[in-house]
Amino acid sequence: MVPTMVWLPEPPESIGGLPDGMAADVWAGGDSLPDSAGEVEVIVMPFRATPAMTAKVARLPNLKLIQLRSAGAEAVMPHVPDHVTVCNARGAHDPATAEWVVGAIFAQSRNLPRFIRSQKTGLWDPAVSDGVAGKHVLIVGYGSIGAAVERRLAGWEVTVERIARRARPDEDVGGIDELYGALPRADVVVLLVPVTGQTQNLADAKFLAAMKDGALLVNAARGPIVDTRALLRELNSGRLKAALDVTDPEPLPDGHPLWRAPNALVTPHVGGMVRAAGSRAAAVVRAQLARYAAGEPLENVIGPQGY
Amino acid sequence: MVPTMVWLPEPPESIGGLPDGMAADVWAGGDSLPDSAGEVEVIVMPFRATPAMTAKVARLPNLKLIQLRSAGAEAVMPHVPDHVTVCNARGAHDPATAEWVVGAIFAQSRNLPRFIRSQKTGLWDPAVSDGVAGKHVLIVGYGSIGAAVERRLAGWEVTVERIARRARPDEDVGGIDELYGALPRADVVVLLVPVTGQTQNLADAKFLAAMKDGALLVNAARGPIVDTRALLRELNSGRLKAALDVTDPEPLPDGHPLWRAPNALVTPHVGGMVRAAGSRAAAVVRAQLARYAAGEPLENVIGPQGY
Repeated sequence: MVPTMVWLPEPPESIGGLPDGMAADVWAGGDSLPDSAGEVEVIVMPFRATPAMTAKVARLPNLKLIQLRSAGAEAVMPHVPDHVTVCNARGAHDPATAEWVVGAIFAQSRNLPRFIRSQKTGLWDPAVSDGVAGKHVLIVGYGSIGAAVERRLAGWEVTVERIARRARPDEDVGGIDELYGALPRADVVVLLVPVTGQTQNLADAKFLAAMKDGALLVNAARGPIVDTRALLRELNSGRLKAALDVTDPEPLPDGHPLWRAPNALVTPHVGGMVRAAGSRAAAVVRAQLARYAAGEPLENVIGPQGY
Repeated sequence: MVPTMVWLPEPPESIGGLPDGMAADVWAGGDSLPDSAGEVEVIVMPFRATPAMTAKVARLPNLKLIQLRSAGAEAVMPHVPDHVTVCNARGAHDPATAEWVVGAIFAQSRNLPRFIRSQKTGLWDPAVSDGVAGKHVLIVGYGSIGAAVERRLAGWEVTVERIARRARPDEDVGGIDELYGALPRADVVVLLVPVTGQTQNLADAKFLAAMKDGALLVNAARGPIVDTRALLRELNSGRLKAALDVTDPEPLPDGHPLWRAPNALVTPHVGGMVRAAGSRAAAVVRAQLARYAAGEPLENVIGPQGY
């Protein structure tokens, strides 16, 4: 039997070896494709796959599955034909991203950027802060990362409210139609939605205006979810605070006004960037390849449809 | 009946009024004492009481109770005669201080000071970090703040180990004699002990040497618990990391080497400094005065004995 050809961004040892019945070539996203381009059935994409990488491989004749090592898929989805399945690495980045969200809420509630700047100049300059305890936290885009955020906030004496595209009453998750009712209640709004046609610019001027005075917007999703110019107006007026791990544009260029906007914490898309993330994503890929090799149903199917 | 005279640092409205049978004068710690100095039975000390303030009032002839609005009592205890009861505000500062501890662990595990410094210069400079998930956290001085830290870490996929002066096997809290067995296991060591003769310099060169390479020392207790010079040696060699909300000396003077030590986060004793702390401490004081007025047993008695 001819083995199923798989492309991996690193050699098979990186995922603890291949299941029986599979063979692998290494493709890390570069211009030249392996000689097995005519046979490849499964492509595991490099961690930060780009639209250009995807366009190079999405129409290879025998391709059936694109497996991502990220949660977000916006660079891949628009380029994938209908007969190719796309799966993400749901879960692999939950701990790191959820830590970042709670840490960012802490930092912006407790003046940490100010104290770190004072440390640099050797200035002992205490100030009273808001606490995190007592806050109402609204999670917009409540999936596995949102649940991981909520688990981490469990002991923090906060109220958590959940919104997803579709309501899931069993889990007390509201639908997106409840968003504008919920925004005025929230002291903290956490964005965790994927980028789709529906979510681009979700946090526009109207969304931001519905947030209460002094509230904090946390973006751990993708930059294009937020209207940067509208956010800058709210930051510069002093009405809202923000913690952004993702920006639009990204990387944020030197001199961009977001860097110095009042009450904005900007980190360089590091929400998932922890040492353990590679092995967590490798475990997701390994389990998925085993399912594929055994003809079992795949997990974390996000496309081509239904995304 | 003559009302019981109480001194408060602010007018009685600040604690929602006095119980029946009590009268109050305001003393905020200044040199001149109210005319009721001969009668005062209960003194509620200002938030950051000093030894000098304590010395001024501890031997007033009718004084029976000193009630603190802080958890730490090291500025008061040595000056209080044996017939005066001292109570602290156990619990009032748990949420704020516990938030600070977890936030500091996050910040130092996820390179937040580095990213905040890069933001100031407009530099998009991602880096891979340790995560918090997977860490072994040792809490030294496990009381109500330690329990509040553990509740906040519950969903963070960490292991928590607890040590207090005396072992409490029912709560899985080890005794201080287990400290040196536990230190080498810990990725994070959180100091929450009160300052006493036994705990001064607890984290000395030997203690720090017992910590594993790359471990993080978090001091949310008091500066004198740590031997600053020994810590500086471990920081400057790059072997340990630190997050310090308290220092010795304090305030840390401009130019002190701790300000610029590698891998040290220093905040200016703001662990408990949140807007809600005043009302939380007021609630503790109000409840205690009600007990005193009713002749009920007091709570949070920490001295003069047994401290």
